Amino acid sequence: MAMFRASREFSKLLRPTSPLLTSLDRAVHGSSGSKKIVGVFYKANEYAEKNPNFLGCLEHGLGIKNWLESQGHTYILTDDKEGPNCELEKHIEDMHVLITTPFHPAYVTADRIKRAKNLQLLLTAGIGSDHVDLQAAAAAGLTVAEVTGSNTVSVAEDELMRILILVRNFLPGHHQVIKGEWNVAAIAYRSYDLEGKTVGTVGAGRIGQLLLQRLKPFGCNLLYYDRAKISAEREKETGAKFEEDLDAMLPKCDVVVLNVPLTEKTRGLLNKERIAKMKKGVLIVNNARGALVDTQAMVDACNSGHVAGYGGDVWYPQPAPKDHPWRYMPNQAMTPHISGTTIDGQIRYAAGTKDMLDRYFKGEDFPAQNYIVKEGKIAPQYQ
Amino acid sequence: MAMFRASREFSKLLRPTSPLLTSLDRAVHGSSGSKKIVGVFYKANEYAEKNPNFLGCLEHGLGIKNWLESQGHTYILTDDKEGPNCELEKHIEDMHVLITTPFHPAYVTADRIKRAKNLQLLLTAGIGSDHVDLQAAAAAGLTVAEVTGSNTVSVAEDELMRILILVRNFLPGHHQVIKGEWNVAAIAYRSYDLEGKTVGTVGAGRIGQLLLQRLKPFGCNLLYYDRAKISAEREKETGAKFEEDLDAMLPKCDVVVLNVPLTEKTRGLLNKERIAKMKKGVLIVNNARGALVDTQAMVDACNSGHVAGYGGDVWYPQPAPKDHPWRYMPNQAMTPHISGTTIDGQIRYAAGTKDMLDRYFKGEDFPAQNYIVKEGKIAPQYQ
Repeated sequence: MAMFRASREFSKLLRPTSPLLTSLDRAVHGSSGSKKIVGVFYKANEYAEKNPNFLGCLEHGLGIKNWLESQGHTYILTDDKEGPNCELEKHIEDMHVLITTPFHPAYVTADRIKRAKNLQLLLTAGIGSDHVDLQAAAAAGLTVAEVTGSNTVSVAEDELMRILILVRNFLPGHHQVIKGEWNVAAIAYRSYDLEGKTVGTVGAGRIGQLLLQRLKPFGCNLLYYDRAKISAEREKETGAKFEEDLDAMLPKCDVVVLNVPLTEKTRGLLNKERIAKMKKGVLIVNNARGALVDTQAMVDACNSGHVAGYGGDVWYPQPAPKDHPWRYMPNQAMTPHISGTTIDGQIRYAAGTKDMLDRYFKGEDFPAQNYIVKEGKIAPQYQ
Repeated sequence: MAMFRASREFSKLLRPTSPLLTSLDRAVHGSSGSKKIVGVFYKANEYAEKNPNFLGCLEHGLGIKNWLESQGHTYILTDDKEGPNCELEKHIEDMHVLITTPFHPAYVTADRIKRAKNLQLLLTAGIGSDHVDLQAAAAAGLTVAEVTGSNTVSVAEDELMRILILVRNFLPGHHQVIKGEWNVAAIAYRSYDLEGKTVGTVGAGRIGQLLLQRLKPFGCNLLYYDRAKISAEREKETGAKFEEDLDAMLPKCDVVVLNVPLTEKTRGLLNKERIAKMKKGVLIVNNARGALVDTQAMVDACNSGHVAGYGGDVWYPQPAPKDHPWRYMPNQAMTPHISGTTIDGQIRYAAGTKDMLDRYFKGEDFPAQNYIVKEGKIAPQYQ
């Protein structure tokens, strides 16, 4: 049954004193008629014109502006999302839907939720909703949803790329080329094959499993830690071995990849103590969230050589300030937050966002796996 | 039967006028007693001490010095290989064996072969013997051999890494990080997933097939061009489709990888005309040999954007001079020649070289696949 209708039915059964009533009423009353939708995206400037499929930038706004306006809705697009005088603040009180991305997230705090009287729906164009205060959203009866699966392949591919960049010591060689140098020894003394190495993923959800599949032909020893085992079929296909205890797995790994969402439980997962217990020379890839790792502990470990390389595209905070120490630590293979925003990924999450908006207008349910907060409940992976 | 003994038998059958006689005699008479072996490797300087397994550098000389000297052989190690007054020249006339690598090759010209009266054996520690004038070596009855298979995995892994670096537009993002910038749009507008793209390998020998195996889980459309089809089993395993005509395959590809040896037939394989017929926005990876590609044609194609990215570790000449234009063309993912000289690869090719020397001292045959020139015949892949 459709979610918004379901909510309406459900609300009839609630006693007037239910704390959920107001919020469910919100969700119900807004589900028809003209809506105000705000989209927060990064500005592409001159790059917007270079590719018509560059849907995820401010200028293209997922390519849904005409579609929304032709149905009588208002679609506000902005990249100005911080501080009391930003453009986003002007629309907090009357917007019905907020769309944003993990690459340039509009932070949805409890305070903003409180002031957003008409707000019903928070959509992440992409994956990862930690920019939303999920407890506050749940208490307010908001629906939070992502385009689950839209960029899992993109991120898994990028993780394998970064593993290879670190294992093979690619970057010092590339920097030599640019600087007009040629010193094979300075690269080769710490360049290895991935073959035969032990690679462990912390988290084996959608992205972790796609990574394991892609690692399979490399002849590695594959390990994974998660709350539950992956399917027997997937275990057999990838040859990955389940590790029940994270702290028992980490010291076995030559390469560790983080594939867990950021929650209060996972924040600072790789701290000084955990890093110290890992192999000297371990390589770490983190495309999940920057705050999973203790910033200074990783700087120290890269400086001492205990960690031989750290690669990823996530930072805390984002955008990373000019003086973020990960920019300047040795043996880093960092980029801005891009792994999930390939053109292919953008096409998928633009389509997925449009689909959810369409269902919202029609009062239909979303694909079940897309819900992060629904009817006051937070999805298990964010608990 | 052992090769050197075989040569001796064979030489008895030859008439005195046979052009092979002198050279076969050479190979025979040198196969016992104390030998002078010259090893040409790159100098590692301070990097030599940083890793005891860094066997392929001058300072470690494959780790066989004590073993050779304990058997009464002389082992000269040098990195000085160019010009009339170099160290190598001092040993040309009386050396029996020359060992070198593709990463810092001692060029063995017809003139050097003519002057090398005692020379019997040319060993490549690694793969690729185009630094030897193979015709002259064959005519002189020299044996040329490589450690076939020793770094095929290393090179295939590196190729997949460079494909991902180009497809996903990694380097501009990394450069932003170093420069203190953050501009997702400037990366994302030309960042793609590898999934769903058409990847073609020109050549599907050992390395090409290892690459196809590693590409399999990425969900690409895989094509290969070679003189002959790979095994039906390998075709089924990788899903790669055989292309009989190189010029018919190239325009279908989003990514082209070169996996052929350098011969007179393959020199300049990717010339201006062939590049022009490829897709606009094609990505090219070449870890095979620099001279397979027309240097200026590739610069022009990268500048015009017809080629959206070129990555590889091979140059012509090597070491690449400071003003080599591939250092400065846009969208390059180049390094010095390193993909085959990982620590794991070095351990394998050091062991393989030692094994061949041991067999040579004992008058035994080498593993058949290692021969590049044997008894006046050049291996098919170099013809």
